[in-house]
Amino acid sequence: MSKLAEKMISSEPIYSGRVVKLAVDTVELPNGHISKRELVRHPGAVAIVAVDSDGRLVMVEQYRYATGKVLLEIPAGTLNPGEDPDLCAHRELQEEVGYKSGTLTRLGAIYLAPGYSTELIHLYLATDLTESRLAGDDDEFIEISHLTVADVLAKIAGNVIQDAKTIAAVMLAREHLK
Amino acid sequence: MSKLAEKMISSEPIYSGRVVKLAVDTVELPNGHISKRELVRHPGAVAIVAVDSDGRLVMVEQYRYATGKVLLEIPAGTLNPGEDPDLCAHRELQEEVGYKSGTLTRLGAIYLAPGYSTELIHLYLATDLTESRLAGDDDEFIEISHLTVADVLAKIAGNVIQDAKTIAAVMLAREHLK
Repeated sequence: MSKLAEKMISSEPIYSGRVVKLAVDTVELPNGHISKRELVRHPGAVAIVAVDSDGRLVMVEQYRYATGKVLLEIPAGTLNPGEDPDLCAHRELQEEVGYKSGTLTRLGAIYLAPGYSTELIHLYLATDLTESRLAGDDDEFIEISHLTVADVLAKIAGNVIQDAKTIAAVMLAREHLK
Repeated sequence: MSKLAEKMISSEPIYSGRVVKLAVDTVELPNGHISKRELVRHPGAVAIVAVDSDGRLVMVEQYRYATGKVLLEIPAGTLNPGEDPDLCAHRELQEEVGYKSGTLTRLGAIYLAPGYSTELIHLYLATDLTESRLAGDDDEFIEISHLTVADVLAKIAGNVIQDAKTIAAVMLAREHLK
């Protein structure tokens, strides 16, 4: 174990919700001091850089209540309990933007807010898209658009795209994009 | 207001901690349905791509309790109440890695986990570094290293760097890096 590691002494559950759970853990620091860690437990998620037959990226706009804004993002979704991330990526692509991917490539996995959240998001590149819609969440309101890679890169550089996972996923997908 | 917007009806505070607060809000969706939103309130943060006189990036390794791992990241820190992000970036750079920046350039701001967290992180490029340490948090254990841009990019491509803000900040800083 790393000499930087912190050891759990106890965990106090505070809240268990639909998306997140909150606990406050008591931990022992590397210097032997005792401290508290506020811990948001999240089941994990997937996000997909989906490239259509014209080489454009499938993007979604949705209202993000926590930010008070509509954000422009790549398609993404939360893992069901025990769900395989690859299967989740296929499912979310069909539910959220209506495409089946013939070739799904794993780009890696990243932590979004490691200071307090356990959320690990698995990133994918989806190509060979064919239209195929699965019924999703009735209470999800999104607008779909197809943007060129150049346009997405300009929107990242201009801070119009403000979603961390979208920026990170596009960076990891860059070598695959025209 | 966007036709995608959700309207708060009420907010139930669940927990108020040192780093985060948790509330469960009742909201009206665009179709008039009523739903709940679990909301992690965070004061916001800064993260800094700091470039030394050799063109290398100043990186930190620290144990992230929520992930159970040591992560390799750029220097970052949470805003104090009412703190200006630029001043916070200067402070964190001095406290966390021991440098004063002669030229701090704002790269933008991004949301880390907009599905449930209010956290907005302000990203900076810091150059013209001179050694200048401010006393920081005694209970923060980090290891500092200086890595070439090529090494950081390889570690992002290889998914060795798994921190979303680090990947996004390096992408936004790319045009400034040799």
